[in-house]
Amino acid sequence: MTPSLINLITDFGEDYRAIVKREIFKRNPEARVIDHGKVDEYSVWKTAHILDVAYDRKTVADREIFLCITDPGVGTAREHLVASIGDGCYFVGPNNGIITYLGEEISQAGAINLQKINREKFSNTFHGRDIFGPTAAHLSLGKTIDEVADSIDKERIVLLDAKTPERNGEYIKNSQVRYVDNYGDIIFNVHKIFLEGAEAVHICGKRWPLRATYASVKANNPVALINSTGLLELAINQGNAAAKTLLTEGSIVPIKVL
Amino acid sequence: MTPSLINLITDFGEDYRAIVKREIFKRNPEARVIDHGKVDEYSVWKTAHILDVAYDRKTVADREIFLCITDPGVGTAREHLVASIGDGCYFVGPNNGIITYLGEEISQAGAINLQKINREKFSNTFHGRDIFGPTAAHLSLGKTIDEVADSIDKERIVLLDAKTPERNGEYIKNSQVRYVDNYGDIIFNVHKIFLEGAEAVHICGKRWPLRATYASVKANNPVALINSTGLLELAINQGNAAAKTLLTEGSIVPIKVL
Amino acid sequence: MTPSLINLITDFGEDYRAIVKREIFKRNPEARVIDHGKVDEYSVWKTAHILDVAYDRKTVADREIFLCITDPGVGTAREHLVASIGDGCYFVGPNNGIITYLGEEISQAGAINLQKINREKFSNTFHGRDIFGPTAAHLSLGKTIDEVADSIDKERIVLLDAKTPERNGEYIKNSQVRYVDNYGDIIFNVHKIFLEGAEAVHICGKRWPLRATYASVKANNPVALINSTGLLELAINQGNAAAKTLLTEGSIVPIKVL
Repeated sequence: MTPSLINLITDFGEDYRAIVKREIFKRNPEARVIDHGKVDEYSVWKTAHILDVAYDRKTVADREIFLCITDPGVGTAREHLVASIGDGCYFVGPNNGIITYLGEEISQAGAINLQKINREKFSNTFHGRDIFGPTAAHLSLGKTIDEVADSIDKERIVLLDAKTPERNGEYIKNSQVRYVDNYGDIIFNVHKIFLEGAEAVHICGKRWPLRATYASVKANNPVALINSTGLLELAINQGNAAAKTLLTEGSIVPIKVL
Repeated sequence: MTPSLINLITDFGEDYRAIVKREIFKRNPEARVIDHGKVDEYSVWKTAHILDVAYDRKTVADREIFLCITDPGVGTAREHLVASIGDGCYFVGPNNGIITYLGEEISQAGAINLQKINREKFSNTFHGRDIFGPTAAHLSLGKTIDEVADSIDKERIVLLDAKTPERNGEYIKNSQVRYVDNYGDIIFNVHKIFLEGAEAVHICGKRWPLRATYASVKANNPVALINSTGLLELAINQGNAAAKTLLTEGSIVPIKVL
Repeated sequence: MTPSLINLITDFGEDYRAIVKREIFKRNPEARVIDHGKVDEYSVWKTAHILDVAYDRKTVADREIFLCITDPGVGTAREHLVASIGDGCYFVGPNNGIITYLGEEISQAGAINLQKINREKFSNTFHGRDIFGPTAAHLSLGKTIDEVADSIDKERIVLLDAKTPERNGEYIKNSQVRYVDNYGDIIFNVHKIFLEGAEAVHICGKRWPLRATYASVKANNPVALINSTGLLELAINQGNAAAKTLLTEGSIVPIKVL
C-alpha cells in the first residue's frame, strides 16, 4: 500500500488551516496532511509556484493529493476543480489558475458535484472547510474523480499568463522572479538549460558567479545557483538577496549570461 | 471507531508547542493533533474566540479534545480545568475564562488530579508540557473526567465578561470586534439574526454593503458578509479591512443597519 | 512498541519543511513528525539551543530522532552526521556544531553513506530533502547507524565554542543569553545551581526578583525564574523582557546575585 498524502497549499492562516484539517481527519483518520505553510494572502501566482515545487515529477509518491486553496473568488461562479495529474495524483482547488504550471500533467478534469460529496449545504466564504477539504478526504480514501465530480473539458481549466523566458544571444528576456523564499533567495523562471556553460549572470547591475553551493563565496557575497528544482536562484551567502536587490515576485528583469 | 482529535489552541510559539505534542504522542502514538496556530501572546480573549470557532456544533466530531493553553497565571492557584462539552467532547486548560463562549455546552467539570495522571512532579512555568498535554493524551486514550480529575461545581468555572450586542431601532450597540484574521477581515460579536433584511451596515463612517461573497464588490472595495460561523464580518475585497479602519480585537463601535 | 518520533528542528520555511516531511512519510507512513518551528535563518547556535531543550533527558522517549538542519554550508565538504544519543535516540544533520550541547550524550557517530540510503543523486542546495530527511526515515523504520552510515571517530564531531558561566563571589561571569522565546522571555546559560539561596539577580541595571511564577509580580514588572529546563530566565509578567532590555541571543552580560 502506498501512502495517501494530502499536501495543503493555501493562503489561510493556521486557524483556518486547522479547520480544514479537521474536515479531512474526521473523514479519514489515517490521512497524512503535509502543511506547506501560508502563501501570501490572495496570491494565486505564488500558490501556483509552491504547487509546482511541491509536485516534483521525480519525488512525488503515488496517490498524493494537492489541496490548493487561494481563492479570492470564493462563493462566485468559478468552478470547484478536481483534476488527476501525473501518475495517480490529484489536484483539488478553485479553478482560478493555481494549476497553471502543471497544465501538461492533467489527464482528467472534473467540477466537484456537491451531491456526490454530501455537501449540499455550504457557506459562501469558506469552501476549504465545506467543499475542498471534504473532497480531498474522499480522494484519500480511494474515491475516483467520477465519484466526487462531473467530468469537464480540460479546456475549461483556467491558466495564468505565465512568462516564458527566451535566450537571445547573451541575454535572456522575459526572465521573471517566480518566488522569494524565507532566506531572501530569489528563484527565477529560468531553467538550467538556458545557462549551460555560463560562468555567471549579470542582474540588477551586479555580477552573480554561478556556483554549486552557497558557501562557494564568502559570507555576504552574491552567488547564483541552479536550485534544487533546476531553476536559476540568486542568493547572498548567509544574507538576503531580495532585501539587497529589491526584486520581488513578478519582477521582470533582463539577464545577461557571462 | 470515531477519530480522537486533539485541537491545540495556545499562545505558545512552535518550539513550545512541539514539546507539548511530544508529551501527547509519547502517551498516544495514534493521536491526531490539529494545531490551530499561535494566538497573540497572553490573550485569553482571542483564545476563547478561536476555541469558539473551532468548536462548531455542526461540524465537531465525537470525542474531540480542545487543549487550550494561554495561561499568564501559570503556576498560581488557578485550577487545571477539564470539562466535558457538547456530545462527548472535552476541554482541557487553565480555568481562566478560555471556555467562556462554550459555557452553555458544559455538562461536567473537574480539576485535574496530578496523582491520577502520574504527574506529581512539575515545573511552575510549563504546565502545557507537565499537566495539560498529558491530560489531553489520557482523554484521547479513552479515560473519563473522573479518571483524570476531581469533580468540581460548574459555578467554579471562570467566565470572561463578554459583551452581548443589542438591536435598538436601526442601531446595534455593544457590538464588539471579536477577531481579526490573517486577511485583515474583522469579525464582530453580531450574529446574523441581527441583520435580517439589511442591505448594508454603516461602521466607522463607511458603508459596507452586505453581500454573499468577497468578490461581489470590486477589488479594494468594502464589503460586509455573514461569515462561515454566522457572524458579521467586514472585509476589503483582496485588501485588509483592519489596516483601513484601525479596528482591532476588543474595539466597541456602534453599527447602523441600513 | 515504543513510538518513533522525528523531531524536525531547522531554519527552513514551512514550504521547504513540507518537502522534507514528504520524503519521510513516503518512506514511513507511520512516522510522527514533530515540527519545532522555524529557527532564525542560518543560526546554528539557536538550533543547538532548541535541540538541547527538545532533547530533555527526563522526558525524551525511546527511539526519538532529532532531525536538525540549519546548514549554511550545504553542498560543501562538511559531513552528513548521524549519531546515537542517550538511550536509543538519534541525531541527523550537518556536522556543523548543532549537536554541541548534547556532546556528552553521544555514544556512536557516523557519516551518512549515500549508497546505503539509495541516494546517489542529490542536489547541492537541499540536503534536507535529498539526504537528511531520507536518513531520518530509515532510522525511524528501525535501521541502525551502521546500516545508513560509516562509523567515524567521535573527535570528528564539530562543536561550537559555548561559554561556560562561572560564579565569582556575588557575580556570575560568562553568563550569556542562549535564547529569546516568542514571549520575549530571555533564557541564560546559567543553571539553577548557580542561584541557590538567591533572592534576586541584578542584570542590565535592573533588579529581577527570583520567584516561582510569572504572576508572582504585577503585570509589566520584571521577574526572574528557573525555567522548565533548569535555566535562569528573565521575564516581564505579560510583557516582553527582550524588548525592554535589548538583550538578544549571544549577549554576554555579568549577573550580580542578590
